Amino acid sequence: MKGYKKSNDYSYTLGVFPTIELLKTRPQDVQRVIVHSSVEKNKGYPLIQKLCLKNHIYIDISDKTIHKLSPKGNCFAIGVFKKNLSSLKKGHHIALVNPMDMGNMGTIMRTMLGFGYYNLVIIKPAVDVFDPKVIRASMGAIFHLNIEYYDDFECYYQKYKHHEFYPLMLKGASNIHNVFTENLHTLVFGNESSGLPDEYLNYGKSVFIPHSEEIDSLNLSMAVGLTLFHFSKNQFQNKRILREE
Amino acid sequence: MKGYKKSNDYSYTLGVFPTIELLKTRPQDVQRVIVHSSVEKNKGYPLIQKLCLKNHIYIDISDKTIHKLSPKGNCFAIGVFKKNLSSLKKGHHIALVNPMDMGNMGTIMRTMLGFGYYNLVIIKPAVDVFDPKVIRASMGAIFHLNIEYYDDFECYYQKYKHHEFYPLMLKGASNIHNVFTENLHTLVFGNESSGLPDEYLNYGKSVFIPHSEEIDSLNLSMAVGLTLFHFSKNQFQNKRILREE
Repeated sequence: MKGYKKSNDYSYTLGVFPTIELLKTRPQDVQRVIVHSSVEKNKGYPLIQKLCLKNHIYIDISDKTIHKLSPKGNCFAIGVFKKNLSSLKKGHHIALVNPMDMGNMGTIMRTMLGFGYYNLVIIKPAVDVFDPKVIRASMGAIFHLNIEYYDDFECYYQKYKHHEFYPLMLKGASNIHNVFTENLHTLVFGNESSGLPDEYLNYGKSVFIPHSEEIDSLNLSMAVGLTLFHFSKNQFQNKRILREE
Repeated sequence: MKGYKKSNDYSYTLGVFPTIELLKTRPQDVQRVIVHSSVEKNKGYPLIQKLCLKNHIYIDISDKTIHKLSPKGNCFAIGVFKKNLSSLKKGHHIALVNPMDMGNMGTIMRTMLGFGYYNLVIIKPAVDVFDPKVIRASMGAIFHLNIEYYDDFECYYQKYKHHEFYPLMLKGASNIHNVFTENLHTLVFGNESSGLPDEYLNYGKSVFIPHSEEIDSLNLSMAVGLTLFHFSKNQFQNKRILREE
């Protein structure tokens, strides 16, 4: 077992929590599970054992491998899985153009899952979604999403022209507080430092998130989160407490 | 010059951008500025020179000190400043109970500035806001905020009882989509992993942010961002584009 490489056809979940998410949602992709000799103390381990038994997945105890793949320590379980992306399904899309930050990518995935957005489109060049740092930041949300990479935005657009398109841009034409839809839509966001180029003003209805002049722009994952919160509000308006402890 | 310690009465801005923010907003606190010998290439440097000249601040060229304080490289300017907190001023408050993550803290500061919230209350134990990691994540927003630490939430509450209080909790009584105020208020958020304890249900009107059951909770900085976006919407509803390039 070696450290992660983009060219590998497998990747890792580092930690008990993302490994459980992997086993629950993508058991068919799991090659094996590696645990630390002191994993017994972790209260998530019985569930890992149960899921591995059910799916005939081998559990390997190896402190050396754990240390090699997660040198920082504090990792008790690792799932080794085949990198398979699920194709886009019916529903709204989030399109990220040239996203480069792994932490942002993970946070965006978790937030998408939180607001019921399951389809993620990524325009290359872009971060590798299977990097263990993305998976960790997503807290396993990645396994619930349908993800497709495109080389070119125009190709994606031609295929999904029947969607309403909302590019989020500092120069956007409409204030987000005055824009709303429940029709099938794609929300488009640019790169962390440069945003979307001006040509995106021509796709659908461009939108800006108003903020004070004291900051240059919002953080990308924050901009995505605010937009999903806004566009999904009718769905959540009448929800009561979702989870009783 | 040694690495940052919480017990020091001074701290550092690492990088040209936060150093400019420091010089613009808190020149009286700056002890000196240290630059790398190749800083001349950086387009922000003339502004640093101008601000230092105006405020009689000494610029020291020392690659060794830069490397010592920011070993990762890619840092061309460091501001050394006295740690002074500005007291709370008139306006709404954000209260964070036991925040522990430096990146989250910085992102929250930047988002507060973006939505016009200038007063930050922190209940101890908590992260040190002057840690250079927080300052960097805030992109200098920290210098625009008024910040007070309290040992105990009740002490803070007694002093600001005239505010409306909204603790954000998974068990909150009201859906945020159905709550709104423009009266003087305090928005209260708990720790990254544990949230607010049940006793906070007794302070003011508790609120929850509805999300799908597929995630346990939103990231803290995301929860704060969504809440500020929601509570400040009347202020921003009619804004047009804020910044023309």
